[in-house]
Amino acid sequence: MSSLSNYLASNQARFRDELFAFLRIPSVSARSEHAGDLRACAAWLRENMQAAGLHTTIHETPGHPIVLGEWRGAGAGAPTVLVYGHYDVQPVEPLELWESPPFEPEIRDGRIYARGSVDDKGQLFLHIKAIEAHLATAGSLPCNVIVLAEGEEEVGSDNLAAFVEAQASHLACDGVVISDSAMFAPGQPSILSSLRGLAYFQIDLEGPSVDLHSGSYGGAVVNPAMALARILATFHDATGRVAIPGFYDAVREWEPEVRAQIRGLPFDDEHFRHEVGATALGGEAGWTTLERIWCRPTCEVNGLLSGYTGEGAKTVLPSKAMAKVSCRLVPDQTPSAIAELLRRHLAQVAPAGVRVQVTELHGGNPWRATLAGPLFDAGRRALERAFGKAPVIVGEGGSIPVVHDFTRVLGAPVMLMGFGLPGENAHAPNEWMSDENFVKGTQAAAYLWEELVRRG
Amino acid sequence: MSSLSNYLASNQARFRDELFAFLRIPSVSARSEHAGDLRACAAWLRENMQAAGLHTTIHETPGHPIVLGEWRGAGAGAPTVLVYGHYDVQPVEPLELWESPPFEPEIRDGRIYARGSVDDKGQLFLHIKAIEAHLATAGSLPCNVIVLAEGEEEVGSDNLAAFVEAQASHLACDGVVISDSAMFAPGQPSILSSLRGLAYFQIDLEGPSVDLHSGSYGGAVVNPAMALARILATFHDATGRVAIPGFYDAVREWEPEVRAQIRGLPFDDEHFRHEVGATALGGEAGWTTLERIWCRPTCEVNGLLSGYTGEGAKTVLPSKAMAKVSCRLVPDQTPSAIAELLRRHLAQVAPAGVRVQVTELHGGNPWRATLAGPLFDAGRRALERAFGKAPVIVGEGGSIPVVHDFTRVLGAPVMLMGFGLPGENAHAPNEWMSDENFVKGTQAAAYLWEELVRRG
Repeated sequence: MSSLSNYLASNQARFRDELFAFLRIPSVSARSEHAGDLRACAAWLRENMQAAGLHTTIHETPGHPIVLGEWRGAGAGAPTVLVYGHYDVQPVEPLELWESPPFEPEIRDGRIYARGSVDDKGQLFLHIKAIEAHLATAGSLPCNVIVLAEGEEEVGSDNLAAFVEAQASHLACDGVVISDSAMFAPGQPSILSSLRGLAYFQIDLEGPSVDLHSGSYGGAVVNPAMALARILATFHDATGRVAIPGFYDAVREWEPEVRAQIRGLPFDDEHFRHEVGATALGGEAGWTTLERIWCRPTCEVNGLLSGYTGEGAKTVLPSKAMAKVSCRLVPDQTPSAIAELLRRHLAQVAPAGVRVQVTELHGGNPWRATLAGPLFDAGRRALERAFGKAPVIVGEGGSIPVVHDFTRVLGAPVMLMGFGLPGENAHAPNEWMSDENFVKGTQAAAYLWEELVRRG
Repeated sequence: MSSLSNYLASNQARFRDELFAFLRIPSVSARSEHAGDLRACAAWLRENMQAAGLHTTIHETPGHPIVLGEWRGAGAGAPTVLVYGHYDVQPVEPLELWESPPFEPEIRDGRIYARGSVDDKGQLFLHIKAIEAHLATAGSLPCNVIVLAEGEEEVGSDNLAAFVEAQASHLACDGVVISDSAMFAPGQPSILSSLRGLAYFQIDLEGPSVDLHSGSYGGAVVNPAMALARILATFHDATGRVAIPGFYDAVREWEPEVRAQIRGLPFDDEHFRHEVGATALGGEAGWTTLERIWCRPTCEVNGLLSGYTGEGAKTVLPSKAMAKVSCRLVPDQTPSAIAELLRRHLAQVAPAGVRVQVTELHGGNPWRATLAGPLFDAGRRALERAFGKAPVIVGEGGSIPVVHDFTRVLGAPVMLMGFGLPGENAHAPNEWMSDENFVKGTQAAAYLWEELVRRG
């Protein structure tokens, strides 16, 4: 056993104790009454990073502070890698559904239960302990490292992009590592290869200027709720393919080997259907469930509102109808191009008698990892060493906007190497992180720096 | 001038004063705090009817009392006619939109402004004054008359059908007269020839058992909001015809002369469109606007609700989606047959992956008048005498359920002879009745009894 592995093993209990102290700070960024806790959490983190051997600074933002830890002793000839994480957590309500208090961490059945355990304190903290292990045993790291921890990820990372832009030359690096996602399955390390983007719209229809009596007017006035339904029904064809003209034009084909790899993952549709609680699954013909979620763009209704929605019957012919509609995007679709296609399509399909307004509410670009290069190769080897199993490449149907910001501003490849697990309740009551993944994740994070400079 | 006409003319000012006293009583049936006012209103009405020469009784119900006034001096050989009206009124909110207080009647520009002026106190009261005129001048009426005034019309007439059924033999009659509708235009008396029925449903769809993240699941799970839109879009074809199989099977064809008469009415689509405030009108191809509202059945969305409907963006894939859908019916469609057709259609078009539930919320049969017979002929002549113009036959797109009850229980023809006018704000602030229509309506109501026994 190397002295690095030995240090990790003999200090694991202390690491866990420190993590528990980190988890006890209720750093809920969405609640203004916790502003002091965010500040205390940043101070605690800075102190812990300092003790690990990093040079630390705290950077104020219009919101919660950013904590920076740096070790640049490897010199200009060595690679520099930025590790990103966040110390803020989701709100804990509804409290009554927690089996143990959210800010009193507890291990049950090999799981560390606490708000923030997996999202993202545990996954951020294991990187700090990995760095500590190198500095404590060898007195140095094989490469230069920057740890950037923000306190606003759960509220939209509003001030992060501006900070990264302002500090771009200081944060210049050869790669970014993020551990804020999940592994495909227990014991199966994973590297995230893609994130979908988002183009979110509100569609408002107005027919008559006021709600009308459906008896006295019904049949002669265009009903905006019915018109909305007919419009939405044009968004897909019978095979589940999005039928907005031009929607797929910018979609980059997936490499056959990535599709083959995804199709090779052990995934049970029936189990997934049962978890979802639906009577059947659905989606675009010709793609598997994982491909539909990871590789294909979508167009979904997120909300509908029109007329009378209370108890019983009210004979109203509504004046207005509203739909929230969002598209998940894949490379190289962009929110602005999709908005333009949607507007054109609506102009084609909206019937006379209704005014249509489209509002763009939210947008984010899709992202695909470079599945090659020194950082990616090092990540693969480090994960295999720690877990005894080569990592699989997985996708993610959701969006992590900061990934796109790092790529855009720093021009460096981003590797998403997560240690969560399915069912971890990241934004729900009883959030947990696998204790085994905390241990092996710390090892993988430590091996990463060795692997990055290993000569093939 | 006959002594009847003379009496009406010389007492018109007093009639108006009495009507104002009637209107001052805030008999809002929907508000429990007005229960005492309803009782006071019934007592006032009874006294006024008694003074007019009717034999009066008050009948308690589980809700507000029914006032009955009778004069049966014409004997068994003469016809008996029942006049129906209601003394309760709609709520007055929003109060700030009234130009004069709702229970302080005021004449402006030839209109009597007050809550209940046209719906229905003014139209009920003119019948009482017409009866009074006969009894005061001739000491008798040419036929037997029953006046039935209820206090629950604006809250669904819950106790009326049971009362009519219980008193069926006492209320036996040769015809029913109701003045609770509007004339087609100022100066143009009208007889209502039809009412549409109603079949009101709630359609609930459930897909996944809980709301899901639209990123992590979107594309692989059937979205119930999108499924609902696609289902609703099957309810009509491209020509505006209802496409639920069998929907028109029970529709009775309209007599060509009734259609011709409706098409001959002076109606301006562009004016109607402007009043409605829509950019264009719509509806079933091949029918005019008035035919679409009066003669044709419809299928309308009255409400939509699914997922997130607040401000901004929430990336939810909803578990549920709901639509309120109602069909206006024409003879001989029935709510139960339409419910069966809808259920069958939904079973055909609902996609796998959603559970569909249909709840029948409300139903009412359509009605068509018998446009012949002594009562109808007498009504025509009485209206022409009072207004100097022959009445037109009009339809009504809404429903008046009591009409069907009277037809069903008493087996007598119902004649709807209304004195309201378009724009009368019956259920809105600033309700009004034309003072001229109050005067001429009283005359028409008085002439009706003469015309009913006139030998051709």
